[in-house]
Amino acid sequence: MEKISRTKIADVLKSEEFGLKVNVKGWVRTRRGNKNVNFIALNDGSTINNLQIVVDVEKFDEEQLKLITTGACLSVNGVLVESVGQNQQVEMQAMEIEVLGAADPLTYPLQKKGHSLEFLREIAHLRPRTNTFGAVFRIRHHMAIAIHQFFHDRGFFYFHTPIITASDCEGAGQMFQVTTMNLYDLKKDEKGAINYENDFFGRQASLTVSGQLEGELAAMALGAIYTFGPTFRAENSNTPRHLAEFWMIEPEVAFNEIEENMDLAEEFIKYCVQWALDNCKDDINFLNNMFDKSLIERLEGVVKQDFVRLSYTEGVNILEQAVANGHKFEFPIYWGADLASEHERYLVEEHFRCPVILTDYPKEIKSFYMKQNEDGKTVRAMDVLFPKIGEIIGGSQREEDYEKLSTRAKEMGVPTKDIWWYLETRRFGTAPHSGFGLGFERLLLFVTGMANIRDVIPFPRTPKNADF
Amino acid sequence: MEKISRTKIADVLKSEEFGLKVNVKGWVRTRRGNKNVNFIALNDGSTINNLQIVVDVEKFDEEQLKLITTGACLSVNGVLVESVGQNQQVEMQAMEIEVLGAADPLTYPLQKKGHSLEFLREIAHLRPRTNTFGAVFRIRHHMAIAIHQFFHDRGFFYFHTPIITASDCEGAGQMFQVTTMNLYDLKKDEKGAINYENDFFGRQASLTVSGQLEGELAAMALGAIYTFGPTFRAENSNTPRHLAEFWMIEPEVAFNEIEENMDLAEEFIKYCVQWALDNCKDDINFLNNMFDKSLIERLEGVVKQDFVRLSYTEGVNILEQAVANGHKFEFPIYWGADLASEHERYLVEEHFRCPVILTDYPKEIKSFYMKQNEDGKTVRAMDVLFPKIGEIIGGSQREEDYEKLSTRAKEMGVPTKDIWWYLETRRFGTAPHSGFGLGFERLLLFVTGMANIRDVIPFPRTPKNADF
Repeated sequence: MEKISRTKIADVLKSEEFGLKVNVKGWVRTRRGNKNVNFIALNDGSTINNLQIVVDVEKFDEEQLKLITTGACLSVNGVLVESVGQNQQVEMQAMEIEVLGAADPLTYPLQKKGHSLEFLREIAHLRPRTNTFGAVFRIRHHMAIAIHQFFHDRGFFYFHTPIITASDCEGAGQMFQVTTMNLYDLKKDEKGAINYENDFFGRQASLTVSGQLEGELAAMALGAIYTFGPTFRAENSNTPRHLAEFWMIEPEVAFNEIEENMDLAEEFIKYCVQWALDNCKDDINFLNNMFDKSLIERLEGVVKQDFVRLSYTEGVNILEQAVANGHKFEFPIYWGADLASEHERYLVEEHFRCPVILTDYPKEIKSFYMKQNEDGKTVRAMDVLFPKIGEIIGGSQREEDYEKLSTRAKEMGVPTKDIWWYLETRRFGTAPHSGFGLGFERLLLFVTGMANIRDVIPFPRTPKNADF
Repeated sequence: MEKISRTKIADVLKSEEFGLKVNVKGWVRTRRGNKNVNFIALNDGSTINNLQIVVDVEKFDEEQLKLITTGACLSVNGVLVESVGQNQQVEMQAMEIEVLGAADPLTYPLQKKGHSLEFLREIAHLRPRTNTFGAVFRIRHHMAIAIHQFFHDRGFFYFHTPIITASDCEGAGQMFQVTTMNLYDLKKDEKGAINYENDFFGRQASLTVSGQLEGELAAMALGAIYTFGPTFRAENSNTPRHLAEFWMIEPEVAFNEIEENMDLAEEFIKYCVQWALDNCKDDINFLNNMFDKSLIERLEGVVKQDFVRLSYTEGVNILEQAVANGHKFEFPIYWGADLASEHERYLVEEHFRCPVILTDYPKEIKSFYMKQNEDGKTVRAMDVLFPKIGEIIGGSQREEDYEKLSTRAKEMGVPTKDIWWYLETRRFGTAPHSGFGLGFERLLLFVTGMANIRDVIPFPRTPKNADF
């Protein structure tokens, strides 16, 4: 076969150089036709769109054509020709075909018929070859790029906070323990306590639940930073919204107060959604048509609207009024209650019909490090609430006063000896600062319209599942 | 104090708008002067350069001025004035100063005198406030951005491979175990084996040592992908080159053979180094002058030179010739030996005096997944060797033949039942493909000239150390 350097199908489909001889490589999605002519839909992952390859049957070896089944990998030399009556302007007239790898039709699990998302989770090693997951993972890439671009353009520094940690930052649920000890021969001291001096780090260690505290250290030196890395929660929650391993973005900015933090969050998320609309058109169109006919409308809505900003107290008033007017919630609503997803969605989807930023939550339901308001009851927390998703961003202005911070930490049972280094930033050149966290997969649920968080990460980790 | 929106010092220093009133915020590096006039060097992390603030002492409260010590955080309103006889063109005449946070000179550990890198590791929560670590972490940011930009521009998709895994990909050293079991009450079966059904994932789980195998799955669907995430080695190595937790970049490309893989690696690393030279000039100049006077020369050298490409066999011949000519190595050299850093550096620094790509290593010293050459003895591995660093990139063309791959896996004791999903890519639409891994901190050692890997990651994890 003549050696021609490969062109990606995304580029071929944009070409108007009819008559040009090119090489494409990719996987067969479908093959159909008759005794004289075959049509192969070839995909190489560079785009959701397939290249149609026209095969003049009599010019090719019959045995070889038999190998061209769904899932087979081909290298094809051919000539670009104008497509007639198709969605696409260009197709390829095959001249030479090499089957790089066959795919036995009896055992290859991804035949043309549609598969349930549940089934595809069981073959997560192959599901990126489907239209749906190709689209989702290309969008995932684009959202990561948008995030880096947004912060880089604004002078933020990407900062890697540690994954393995000896301090439990937020006390957020159960943590995964990390160890190199031989579990069959655990050394204990005279009181029967496990002797962690023998462990790799010489003490008990876990997987991080948030990079925020370390991020704050960096912001108090570099000015504006963001993290983007994996975080872990060992919650035994088998729901469409929980993962044991997920990626989080946490910007932190010295000198920002809560208002500037809200501005940043709103600008940030609009930037990401606009990026998706601008750069992932084909993939989003596919998902809109396949799964969620209001996806594009929802994305465009978020970009256009000013987010409504109100206090938790005002939000609770609205919800109590709704109950008084006969609206039924599953969970009770009263000042001091943690808002459930149904409450958040009522505010966003029914009351305001646009994204909402709630601020100034009761201090009892928020973390120790949030800046205390003068009312003695609330803290400068902010949650960004989105249609369909509920809370997509959670953040706050941080308490910069050493005494207030350490007192509150003790009140809430945070072991201050484990976070001496965090407290020290308030002793040496403290300053107002603020930040927030965005769960990357939450963003992806919103942007792709997928319903289950297991379907927006390549290899989901959930209770009883660490396959692949 | 009049409220003026803050300008970053990096922007102030570029300004020529003398007479303009601005606000800056940052941390005091030094304060000097006399009874009449004080000079404050203020830094906000946006650049290594300080803004000089001129304080007319009699206009300010004496008690407040006392608080302006090294490490204190200030907000200053003032007027930009042209600087005379300075490195910088602009300085600020202070009008109003607010001390946001003091820093007690008796306890603040970062006084003006130089500190050893060893000491600074013990205060990793404060070291980003030093010139050295500010420079290193800004460069770290830039290298991450360069990496994403490089791959995004070339149509690669950023792909998140799992951190927690149930399969030991490369058998590379000891792994960290991840568990939620109560170590005081481990359930065992009748044979005395720990019953992992009770563990979070229902089986034994560890932290990943490489995302390559999962990356290959993605490349065989999306065409070209790269990972960029944390990886872990539980090696008990207390050396300046080892971390237990580090970040790795692993591109993987369907249809690429070893030659294209070498081209990609060379283009990639030159792009990163050129990015650093273009975008981190002040920081690199500082490191060059402070630690390593040949840093810039070395960086420029790498960008200019074509990397020498030769086989392992040719490399060993050169090394054996060197020994014959009287050169002493600590470790023996012979065909079949794993090259030590001294061997790699001899080839790069003494023989060729430029970066080297070695290929076609003996199969016994490389991983099971590398493509077997027809000689039956070597595999299509490639290592990129750099001055001062030794191996900076390791990669290979992958074995795409199912029989050869599974046979070699068994020969090398890789439990094939754990990687059935990996092997299946060779059963369904297999194709040639190649990739490589770059240790992010190795790249940073090269680009910053720092000598210890603990000094290029914010919070190093090493044996007996998981502080902060």
